[in-house]
Amino acid sequence: MVETRPVRIPELMSSDRAALDALLDDTVLAHIGFVSDGHPVVIPTGVCRIGQQVFAHGSTGSRWMRLLSTGVPVSVSVATVDGIVVARSAFESSLHYRSAVLFGSFSAVTGDEKLAALDAFTERLLPGRTREVRPSSKKELAATSMLALTIESWSLRISNGWPEDPDDDLASDVWAGVVPIQHVTTLPLAAPDLRRGIGVPASVRRLADAGPAL
Amino acid sequence: MVETRPVRIPELMSSDRAALDALLDDTVLAHIGFVSDGHPVVIPTGVCRIGQQVFAHGSTGSRWMRLLSTGVPVSVSVATVDGIVVARSAFESSLHYRSAVLFGSFSAVTGDEKLAALDAFTERLLPGRTREVRPSSKKELAATSMLALTIESWSLRISNGWPEDPDDDLASDVWAGVVPIQHVTTLPLAAPDLRRGIGVPASVRRLADAGPAL
Repeated sequence: MVETRPVRIPELMSSDRAALDALLDDTVLAHIGFVSDGHPVVIPTGVCRIGQQVFAHGSTGSRWMRLLSTGVPVSVSVATVDGIVVARSAFESSLHYRSAVLFGSFSAVTGDEKLAALDAFTERLLPGRTREVRPSSKKELAATSMLALTIESWSLRISNGWPEDPDDDLASDVWAGVVPIQHVTTLPLAAPDLRRGIGVPASVRRLADAGPAL
Repeated sequence: MVETRPVRIPELMSSDRAALDALLDDTVLAHIGFVSDGHPVVIPTGVCRIGQQVFAHGSTGSRWMRLLSTGVPVSVSVATVDGIVVARSAFESSLHYRSAVLFGSFSAVTGDEKLAALDAFTERLLPGRTREVRPSSKKELAATSMLALTIESWSLRISNGWPEDPDDDLASDVWAGVVPIQHVTTLPLAAPDLRRGIGVPASVRRLADAGPAL
């Protein structure tokens, strides 16, 4: 297994599985790396965690989905920026972030597991939505590939502290602190072809009420 | 060169270099993929575009920075989620996103180019900050590696449309639309060790006033 632990900041490493799950559940996008003809390729795509597995889905026509389904080794990177660390020097300034890299391989899932994962993707973005829409058709299901990777080998780094300025800078007149960043949903926009009289559904209303989103 | 164009949704592909630059300038994090001992590795890290180049920096003690500086092939993935596309079916529901993958290799930069890139990183997160802090020391500069990749080979996908439901679903009573997502800074938090009487600087105040951030 490739060692990705940084030399400089081992104190940011975490083995907290609950924190890993929280990051995966807060972050829609993952960046899946694999080797194709000896070259590195990274594909950004949406993922969804269910228990011990991370799921990715796409069109059955997608070449990279087909390659991943053969079980080639992958590295899956997930990260979110939660704030700007404003130190008293440029050197010590940095980001509040949470990042994880998972190692392993994907395999195709089918049947009930595929159906459950598809619903999980929908519910993850919009809780309650699966009860508001029709079930997927056989044709839609057939057009969708679903892949799963078991969470076994991973590294997690969390930066959430205050600036750590040396004594010389602490004595200066320069401000230091943190500027938080939030990812929020704003007012829903109705589609131009929406028929008159159809109100915003509960799932979307709850999203707007819930504040910070992804 | 590896072909990453999707089979299913070529209409999302863009060759708009200005849109690529906008994405790179809106998104702090990149996910850099490379091959190490035959295995794919993806590292999330902050990047900064200046003109035709994308810069990454880190500790001189970082093994992956040292590997990248040797010019190994890389794939650099950058993406942002800008909204949730709420279609009349789960199948057609998706995300508003912008994503790019760059191919090439990094090389180490030094001297004035390194200084300029370090300032660009600081100014990118906090415009005006370089005028509020001391210059980096020789020791700090020596501890920092700076790498650059020239933007030459890339693919860009932008999803920013309305739901595209088939006629059967258009006739249903199900709501459809888009829920935008914004990435905003919230009120700055002063460091616990900040000396009394030091006010929030102009750079941080401007950030708070500017609204949407990253």
